[in-house]
Amino acid sequence: MTDSLLDDFFKGDTRALSRVITRVENRSEDSLSILQTLFPRSGNARVIGVTGSPGSGKSTLVDRLAAVYRSSNQDLAIVAVDPTSPFTGGAILGDRVRMQTPGVFIRSMATRGHLGGLAAATADVVTVLDAAGKNPILVETVGVGQDEIDIVKLADVSLVVLVPGMGDDIQALKAGIMEIGDIFVINKCDRPGVENMERAVLAMLSLAHRPDGWQPPVVRTVATEGTGIDELAGTIDKAYAFFQNSREKAARKQDAARERLITLLKERLVNAVIQEVFPDGELGKVVEEITNRQRDPYTVVEEIVRNSQLKRLK
Amino acid sequence: MTDSLLDDFFKGDTRALSRVITRVENRSEDSLSILQTLFPRSGNARVIGVTGSPGSGKSTLVDRLAAVYRSSNQDLAIVAVDPTSPFTGGAILGDRVRMQTPGVFIRSMATRGHLGGLAAATADVVTVLDAAGKNPILVETVGVGQDEIDIVKLADVSLVVLVPGMGDDIQALKAGIMEIGDIFVINKCDRPGVENMERAVLAMLSLAHRPDGWQPPVVRTVATEGTGIDELAGTIDKAYAFFQNSREKAARKQDAARERLITLLKERLVNAVIQEVFPDGELGKVVEEITNRQRDPYTVVEEIVRNSQLKRLK
Repeated sequence: MTDSLLDDFFKGDTRALSRVITRVENRSEDSLSILQTLFPRSGNARVIGVTGSPGSGKSTLVDRLAAVYRSSNQDLAIVAVDPTSPFTGGAILGDRVRMQTPGVFIRSMATRGHLGGLAAATADVVTVLDAAGKNPILVETVGVGQDEIDIVKLADVSLVVLVPGMGDDIQALKAGIMEIGDIFVINKCDRPGVENMERAVLAMLSLAHRPDGWQPPVVRTVATEGTGIDELAGTIDKAYAFFQNSREKAARKQDAARERLITLLKERLVNAVIQEVFPDGELGKVVEEITNRQRDPYTVVEEIVRNSQLKRLK
Repeated sequence: MTDSLLDDFFKGDTRALSRVITRVENRSEDSLSILQTLFPRSGNARVIGVTGSPGSGKSTLVDRLAAVYRSSNQDLAIVAVDPTSPFTGGAILGDRVRMQTPGVFIRSMATRGHLGGLAAATADVVTVLDAAGKNPILVETVGVGQDEIDIVKLADVSLVVLVPGMGDDIQALKAGIMEIGDIFVINKCDRPGVENMERAVLAMLSLAHRPDGWQPPVVRTVATEGTGIDELAGTIDKAYAFFQNSREKAARKQDAARERLITLLKERLVNAVIQEVFPDGELGKVVEEITNRQRDPYTVVEEIVRNSQLKRLK
């Protein structure tokens, strides 16, 4: 079953690719073996992270970039990490319609409900796309939370998208995004306040110390009209080439690999230990006692560890 | 040392309270025993979560609410979870100045660098404040990421703060916040677009099915002028009273307790197992091999688990 699916996958079948991603996302039974097979075949794609506040025109920008890559026959993919709640389903207020350039593989991921966290799930999906030969892979997120920052860390080149005249975007900048932006895009540059925004960004950047010597450029675009997109694509190429020899970037990737490993390990361990210590599903009772303040979670953790078979823990 | 600190803490000494929080935040050696002591003494405070986009006037609203509670001699505390990066230090673009009502204990928490995640760290800090007799405890977050949603889950009553005329806020609404908002506040109601915003919120709410029968009210405020704050405080009281008998709220609290336990357990296990399997700090080597694609993280996890002493894992 898995084998024939992977056969189709390696033949470049798009439906097989979608199905493999779904299995990996859902942590279906064969997802471990799928990822074990695909991981060694990944690592070739340029991964471009794009983050920005809602309303920054990020998706349009990504679609425009996709069209540029597509025009030079690159077999690219977009992963749109969508902050859509399962409750609203994203449909109520109308999701923006994507441009859907033919030949561009687009995958949306909900931000919630991923065991082990969104960043880990995104890393797995990127691994699958990478092994499928997609290159570049554009990963689009809403850049505010820690999750999103962790996602951008996976990228070879990270774009932060801003809009002139929005104080909120400057606030979002403060959310740790500043440190990981390799290129700053001021989109909707036909609006007033471009100079001010650029000045604010440059002021913040002047305080950043990038040991690798990279000076994050600021690129102006009007994505809806396609203005500045070619220049942006060129800047991305330049950044990518620069980072090939950047120790800082290598260290960041190593950090991302470490975090991914730790996340996977945590998930695996906690499930195993809970099964070991509470074989009959007694966890619920303990949770109830904690909720009622009859027991404290700190002591319960120590007890669980003591009752497990980990030798160094006691 | 810890004993005399806790003596001062129980005498109501504010400096001792700050020091206890710092120890808990930093996971200092005695933090486990501190939390074990304080947890059973917590559970009395009303915890009020306040979330909203940057620029929604959330902090001013919280300060105004604090003044209302203070005027009736309540010994309250504010936990401001600040999305400030360690890089910018939050100072460059000027942090808003808080109103600082005398007698209100304010604690800021950075959103990053907390082992085990921000939600877990916030839960610990709230536990400490609760044990110190602070009531109510206002927890203020920027409501977009999963972390922030997890934080709001800790609250007895959750407020979502919106501003008229900002499409972005509606976007933020979609980020799962909608499900957890018990009261929706439209702040800056002296701006145009109030009717539209209220209609949009009510439309979304009409699709929500709250099994407990609570109809989240929409309250209009102008926090800078203090307009609507008394009404808001009254609405919070009403919600709190309603939720005393809400099974849904109880289930949500149990969820929060479960997540907290799991987070603590994960952290404890992963550290212990890594110490057990890689006693000589060989983890770095493995991470490097993963980064270079010589090994895959999925197989490494299986190996680590096999080499640990967990009996059911093999």
